[in-house]
Amino acid sequence: MTKIGILGYGNLGRGVECAIKQNEDMELTYVFTRRDPATVKILTDSAKVASVNDILNHKDEIDILIICGGSATDLPEQTPEYAKHFNVIDSFDTHAKIPDHFSNVDRSAKEGGHIALISVGWDPGMFSLNRVYASAILPDGADYTFWGRGVSQGHSDAIRRIEGVLDARQYTCPIESAVESVRKGEQPELSTRQKHTRECFVVAADGADLAKIEKEIKEMPNYFADYDTTVTFISKEELDRDHQGIPHGGMVIRSGRTGWDLENKHVIEYSLKLDSNPEFTSSVLIAYARAAMRMHAEGQRGCRTVLDVPPAYLSRMSGDELRAHML
Amino acid sequence: MTKIGILGYGNLGRGVECAIKQNEDMELTYVFTRRDPATVKILTDSAKVASVNDILNHKDEIDILIICGGSATDLPEQTPEYAKHFNVIDSFDTHAKIPDHFSNVDRSAKEGGHIALISVGWDPGMFSLNRVYASAILPDGADYTFWGRGVSQGHSDAIRRIEGVLDARQYTCPIESAVESVRKGEQPELSTRQKHTRECFVVAADGADLAKIEKEIKEMPNYFADYDTTVTFISKEELDRDHQGIPHGGMVIRSGRTGWDLENKHVIEYSLKLDSNPEFTSSVLIAYARAAMRMHAEGQRGCRTVLDVPPAYLSRMSGDELRAHML
Repeated sequence: MTKIGILGYGNLGRGVECAIKQNEDMELTYVFTRRDPATVKILTDSAKVASVNDILNHKDEIDILIICGGSATDLPEQTPEYAKHFNVIDSFDTHAKIPDHFSNVDRSAKEGGHIALISVGWDPGMFSLNRVYASAILPDGADYTFWGRGVSQGHSDAIRRIEGVLDARQYTCPIESAVESVRKGEQPELSTRQKHTRECFVVAADGADLAKIEKEIKEMPNYFADYDTTVTFISKEELDRDHQGIPHGGMVIRSGRTGWDLENKHVIEYSLKLDSNPEFTSSVLIAYARAAMRMHAEGQRGCRTVLDVPPAYLSRMSGDELRAHML
Repeated sequence: MTKIGILGYGNLGRGVECAIKQNEDMELTYVFTRRDPATVKILTDSAKVASVNDILNHKDEIDILIICGGSATDLPEQTPEYAKHFNVIDSFDTHAKIPDHFSNVDRSAKEGGHIALISVGWDPGMFSLNRVYASAILPDGADYTFWGRGVSQGHSDAIRRIEGVLDARQYTCPIESAVESVRKGEQPELSTRQKHTRECFVVAADGADLAKIEKEIKEMPNYFADYDTTVTFISKEELDRDHQGIPHGGMVIRSGRTGWDLENKHVIEYSLKLDSNPEFTSSVLIAYARAAMRMHAEGQRGCRTVLDVPPAYLSRMSGDELRAHML
């Protein structure tokens, strides 16, 4: 039985709690929060809620700590800090900053004699794995990653910061004709605008200048300016009724050629359709928590990513069972 | 530079030769054959052809031997035998006999101080990996594997053994409505007949009893009796014109549920569309040959499968490069 602590009880932390329930070799012992613990209600009767300030008093009750903070400010601080005291795993997803995060966490984890797995989820995570597998198998080829249709929290937040906006939900959508061309192995050159569109559903304040809001969204640099963006104003009731889920997904496609004269074409595709982005990410985290415990048990110390983990380590089955039933 | 020997120069051996050309860190040194070496023409100027009887004289010129024999009779003999003398890799694909093959090869490889990777390809191989990843992530769910549309050599051979048949090509085809139901996460119960159909293109001898041939195919136990099978008689010219390729592919799909009350649905799909089955398998073999050399260099001995190999080991990139560019 692996004893798990969750640090941070938002959508991701709650997803981890649900995933633990689905894995009989895992047990939730503690949820740690920055809020007043008395105000945090969790679902698991047998687990306790405690203040993050008391976390070091519970080292013996936790085999691995799943850190469920945000990538912008929480994880760059938390993961290196807690890797000194616990085996840890996070879903750090700021791709450009992974090398820095890795070296910070690696230093702490080695110092503390722990194992740490960072950037575990689906992108980075399962999508990264598939990029690596496919490009190793087909060295003469091209990679494409499409996301969606799914909710982007970052883009939804960006819209909410506009004056006159009460709430918003943004969907990232792959452009079907681009996906089809890639699937046919045509290896098209695709600009940002040719890969995805952005659909925005916005609740505006009474009397707000809708044209101004729409213009501000569509011209927002980095977030929307490089995309074909649609803005639909809806009521708060419509938002609550039709846009409460957090679906996501996407696909990693590589097409490449083999043969003495590269005469044969191949297409490898990995795709996800997810009703709940945080719950799927949580499910990946729990499978890798099992792997991390095995790596720790065999003496591995320091930081690792999904690229370093043998697939068998994720499964509850033994090597013999896997070879007999899954290979 | 990894020096590679190929044992057996059929479709697969020739595919490996082509794949080596695409990987600058790999070099083909020898092709070993059971035929008279003088009769075997290969594509690589810098490599030599030798008799399999002389293979032990070339141990110093080979870092890893890729054994390209058949799973029925060649590999069960060859892989354990040569694992005593070489690092080896094969694509043994008789699923039910993998545990026996594994333990035979493991014993020899340990005796010889070598690493051996067995059952490397796409099924077993990449499909197995995806079954393991997906079932570890979504423990409450169901797995489906579909093959095709693609040529089954075994089924084509079975038809060729019928009296009055000169040549034949059999395609395994997934049933689209079954695939769609699985993709929607409906988790249907599917019989053998509900998953695949079999399309047979047959060249009959002049004056052969076509009705009798068709009946014999459709009623052949194990191969065709459990499937909806179509038989089309064509001329030798049509066969040569329209059916010379060896395409294949398929998909592994897992759908599962997450959430406290399993309220959310997820679908993971891995799919392949391959112009050349043997060339794709060869490309997987070469990527895993790289991994095997790394495992051997770090002191690993004995038999392994794709499930034991960290994804990063397949890539030419370093850990730093992978984290910066692929994660």
